[in-house]
Amino acid sequence: MDMWFSEVHTPDVKLSLRTAQQLYSGKSEWQDIAVLETPAFGKILVLNGHVLFSDADDFVYNEMVVHVPMAVHPKPKKVLVLGGGDGGVAQVLTMYPELEQIDIVEPDEMLVEVCRQYFPDFAQGLDDPRVNIYHQDGLRFLRNCEAEYDMIINDATDPFGHTEGLFTKEFYGNSYRALKEDGIMIYQHGSPFFDEDESACRSMHRKATQSFPISRVYQAHIPTSPAGYWLFGFASKKYHPIEDFKKDKWKERQLFTEYYTANLHIGAFMLPKYVEDILEEEEGRK
Amino acid sequence: MDMWFSEVHTPDVKLSLRTAQQLYSGKSEWQDIAVLETPAFGKILVLNGHVLFSDADDFVYNEMVVHVPMAVHPKPKKVLVLGGGDGGVAQVLTMYPELEQIDIVEPDEMLVEVCRQYFPDFAQGLDDPRVNIYHQDGLRFLRNCEAEYDMIINDATDPFGHTEGLFTKEFYGNSYRALKEDGIMIYQHGSPFFDEDESACRSMHRKATQSFPISRVYQAHIPTSPAGYWLFGFASKKYHPIEDFKKDKWKERQLFTEYYTANLHIGAFMLPKYVEDILEEEEGRK
Repeated sequence: MDMWFSEVHTPDVKLSLRTAQQLYSGKSEWQDIAVLETPAFGKILVLNGHVLFSDADDFVYNEMVVHVPMAVHPKPKKVLVLGGGDGGVAQVLTMYPELEQIDIVEPDEMLVEVCRQYFPDFAQGLDDPRVNIYHQDGLRFLRNCEAEYDMIINDATDPFGHTEGLFTKEFYGNSYRALKEDGIMIYQHGSPFFDEDESACRSMHRKATQSFPISRVYQAHIPTSPAGYWLFGFASKKYHPIEDFKKDKWKERQLFTEYYTANLHIGAFMLPKYVEDILEEEEGRK
Repeated sequence: MDMWFSEVHTPDVKLSLRTAQQLYSGKSEWQDIAVLETPAFGKILVLNGHVLFSDADDFVYNEMVVHVPMAVHPKPKKVLVLGGGDGGVAQVLTMYPELEQIDIVEPDEMLVEVCRQYFPDFAQGLDDPRVNIYHQDGLRFLRNCEAEYDMIINDATDPFGHTEGLFTKEFYGNSYRALKEDGIMIYQHGSPFFDEDESACRSMHRKATQSFPISRVYQAHIPTSPAGYWLFGFASKKYHPIEDFKKDKWKERQLFTEYYTANLHIGAFMLPKYVEDILEEEEGRK
């Protein structure tokens, strides 16, 4: 059987992956969930027709949203992850013994169950005793928090659909309030290459820049992302991602990584000119 | 009409682009040549079924193979480009007034003619009076050169087919000989992500490391490349790409770029851990 799954990047571009078999298909209260087995990327999780992650490239994403802020914040204890029901982000967070509490707000209980079954390597992160899972709406959860967290990782990638609330101006304001006075928020900045994605990317930077005194953007190469290129936002009340980067301290930990290195931490903030231009325009610097 | 062109990255992965029309199709002595019009990438040049470049992302490649060595070499005068019949690399080279001679060795005369017709913006680089085009085999041309060039840019991307000779151990040795005592060679290092590409990437690094005292690898994000990720080799007799980088001098030139910046020059050499591991293994350091 010659079966292909297509990830539609824009109406005019799609990435197609040969598919050995569909392992799971279901519909939760929130979304369509599917798990496919592919020769190139191993198992992939598909939500509403879009790849959320794959066995082969999820390490890039998980390492980049966790190690970058963890290597900057001097004494993080309490982290909030919005989304993240697959456990991949939690798994990397649990490498850090100084973290005392990891709260994961994932509205979709079925998603967690599917990930536990098909992606046990990632999902084991959810079993750490410091991890608490709340099956609630992320924005509603956030409204009740004040000066509580050292770090917030917004793991929601889709500015449309049921996670739409995690991309509004209100969200950035509520995140600011939920963070302690030296807190850091990491969020998904999207892919800047295709015209279809550029305006979402601009809008996110505008909102973050208006809400946080420090707002920088960093990059990673994720093959299943649109154009293979993904940006992350680093929004912070006090610490600068490069000036306050504790390079030697991080290296001394000798953590196992496949993407992140202390050098790459710095390089990830060195962006192409066309991306710099987009960001500077939204900052009113250009 | 719903027409799609598929760039086959591996037998299990393809990038498909909606195609408005096929503008040209022909067969030279060396290869099948096609030009397609696509909404997402503008015009694309397809050789033997593979995208060589597109209107939308060729700037990344051209800037990265030219500005990186030009910002390191203190007094380059004479450059050799192997391949490059489209003129894109030549066009960026002609931004530098200190260059006195730009020799382009492109065996395929028909390719040059097609590019002149369909990609006049790139091809205008070929009209600069300092540019000489030789319709010859690159490896044969190189065999007759000794201590002649300050820089060699190997623009050939395919280690198979008629450019195979530009990926052999002999090629790296001949390039070394053709360079002056402080010469720099830039070459295509391939895409390291898919298993299918990794062995070619390893083999190239091994050959370059054995032939040149300085051999470093840098990266760029090119959406039409396999996994959207491309590596370049910087092989050099004397200058180190970072230690000898003349950042201020380059910035003073105020050249127009869309991808390269003096900052990105440094970041491009900060590679993901899995790439570092591959390179270190081939260097015998791991």
